[in-house]
Amino acid sequence: MNIAEKIISGNIRSVARLIREIDDNVPGAREVLRDIYPSTGKAYVVGITGSPGGGKSTLVDQMVTHLRAAGKTVGVLAVDSTSPFSGGAILGDRVRMQRHSMDEGVFIRSMATRGSFGGITQSTRSAIDVLDAMGKDYIIVETVGVGQDEIDIVQSVDTTIIVLVPGMGDNVQALKAGILEIGNIFVINKADREGADKTVNDIQSMIEMNEKRYKDGWKPPILSTQAISDKGIIEILDEIDKHRKHLQSSAQIQSMRKYEKARNDLSEMIKDKIIHDVYDEITESGELEATLQSIVKGEIDPYTACDTIVSKKLKKGTT
Amino acid sequence: MNIAEKIISGNIRSVARLIREIDDNVPGAREVLRDIYPSTGKAYVVGITGSPGGGKSTLVDQMVTHLRAAGKTVGVLAVDSTSPFSGGAILGDRVRMQRHSMDEGVFIRSMATRGSFGGITQSTRSAIDVLDAMGKDYIIVETVGVGQDEIDIVQSVDTTIIVLVPGMGDNVQALKAGILEIGNIFVINKADREGADKTVNDIQSMIEMNEKRYKDGWKPPILSTQAISDKGIIEILDEIDKHRKHLQSSAQIQSMRKYEKARNDLSEMIKDKIIHDVYDEITESGELEATLQSIVKGEIDPYTACDTIVSKKLKKGTT
Repeated sequence: MNIAEKIISGNIRSVARLIREIDDNVPGAREVLRDIYPSTGKAYVVGITGSPGGGKSTLVDQMVTHLRAAGKTVGVLAVDSTSPFSGGAILGDRVRMQRHSMDEGVFIRSMATRGSFGGITQSTRSAIDVLDAMGKDYIIVETVGVGQDEIDIVQSVDTTIIVLVPGMGDNVQALKAGILEIGNIFVINKADREGADKTVNDIQSMIEMNEKRYKDGWKPPILSTQAISDKGIIEILDEIDKHRKHLQSSAQIQSMRKYEKARNDLSEMIKDKIIHDVYDEITESGELEATLQSIVKGEIDPYTACDTIVSKKLKKGTT
Repeated sequence: MNIAEKIISGNIRSVARLIREIDDNVPGAREVLRDIYPSTGKAYVVGITGSPGGGKSTLVDQMVTHLRAAGKTVGVLAVDSTSPFSGGAILGDRVRMQRHSMDEGVFIRSMATRGSFGGITQSTRSAIDVLDAMGKDYIIVETVGVGQDEIDIVQSVDTTIIVLVPGMGDNVQALKAGILEIGNIFVINKADREGADKTVNDIQSMIEMNEKRYKDGWKPPILSTQAISDKGIIEILDEIDKHRKHLQSSAQIQSMRKYEKARNDLSEMIKDKIIHDVYDEITESGELEATLQSIVKGEIDPYTACDTIVSKKLKKGTT
């Protein structure tokens, strides 16, 4: 069996290795991704995002337990784009998930690509493809940060869950602008805390206000949970199921989503590949270093330097 | 006078227009940026970041008042990369700054570039150059979100201030991994709130733990403030001044920073330009649309499609 076949047959060691290679941007990984691509598209992908400290990891942990009890296999990707220096911080959280570590039906991995070209959106998308090809029924993508990367990532999943906690005050306000608008299901976790009703009302009125956004006919439900004592988790899974059925109910929604996914996938891939190719070239040839020295000495401005490099690398008018 | 000369002479309308064009990625803007580049490098740039709801806008507002009282001119850029849909949310905050709106010595602008290629890091860097060229003594870059974009942005400023509020609990924990490590000055705002001492202690021990990071000899101070009643603001400005003197005290630090800035600027510019150029081409030629249709129909996988497009656009081995 070649690597692609091993992955499709569910070989955990090959899967783990490919995801690591994706994260490290190892060249050979692309060929494997290409080979497994025809085997993707069967998993149902759930994104979970929201502000730090909302109990997302515990929630995911409980969801995994319930899905396993229902006989479903699960892949979990924990994505963190906010930590440029120490990669270790989120590992602590992951430890909580250890109770699933002996379960062959669960595969858990952290994604934390760094470097000036980020690329975490693309690596996460590829990792989703890998878990999909290996045959997982559900893939849960949990984001740690709350930046543009996380928004890009959850935009490409099937169902997006936004997790909030009561009494966030200004934070809800700040989040409103961005990620709240992409939620298919809202979860108020730690719902025994003071201010839970207010948070529910805030979200409720935000949903009412934005009703025109929900043009595909799905109005996001708001659920109150206490993940730590397993309260409300089954309700989340029920709503995921309802949303799934909603997405599958119309051929128009399905083809629209297929096109959107292709557009997102291709855009990210082109962006990633082109930047890496150009950077590898100008780094290896020493052109980057020589240009930087010229800029520092004031011999050239960065705009002119950039144009010179790009025009050397890019074919023009060949379309 | 051409546009570049108008900007260098401080013409507010030309500055506002150029920043808008940068945000909208209007082609002509690059030429103007190139022309004003030799006039940059005089302003002192301060970045302010931290979790939403920390009172950053109020803090900036007070800092502007004090800097103006000291006869300094100030530019303020408010950066928000977290809001992909509704651009309006942060405008409310900006309203607080209106008391400076009649003051010719203050220029305030929001940056909120969207679109799948983000580009907010590059637009913000260019906007800093514009405010620098127009002659502002201080430029304050305030970030609204807390993602990778914000980290990239504050990494390119002279002094980075991290604003926290007491009692953030898990949030401090979550932030620790990322932005805390890039702070030159820590500000605990709303310091009259419960838990302020604990937050100061948390940051203190984090700084002690990471002492090896501060290899340039600057150990970040921690200040307690109540921005809303102007408490502690002068102390922030004093620390900025000390940090500025520290950076200017050693030729080695100065040349290191100059090189880092050139590297960051050039990398972002190349990345931005190359992606836009390629995308404009494949969008206009219809190649992107045709490829997407093929992917949706299952005639081609996105990896192969990406390679085909990139190899058509990129010159290979010409270095």
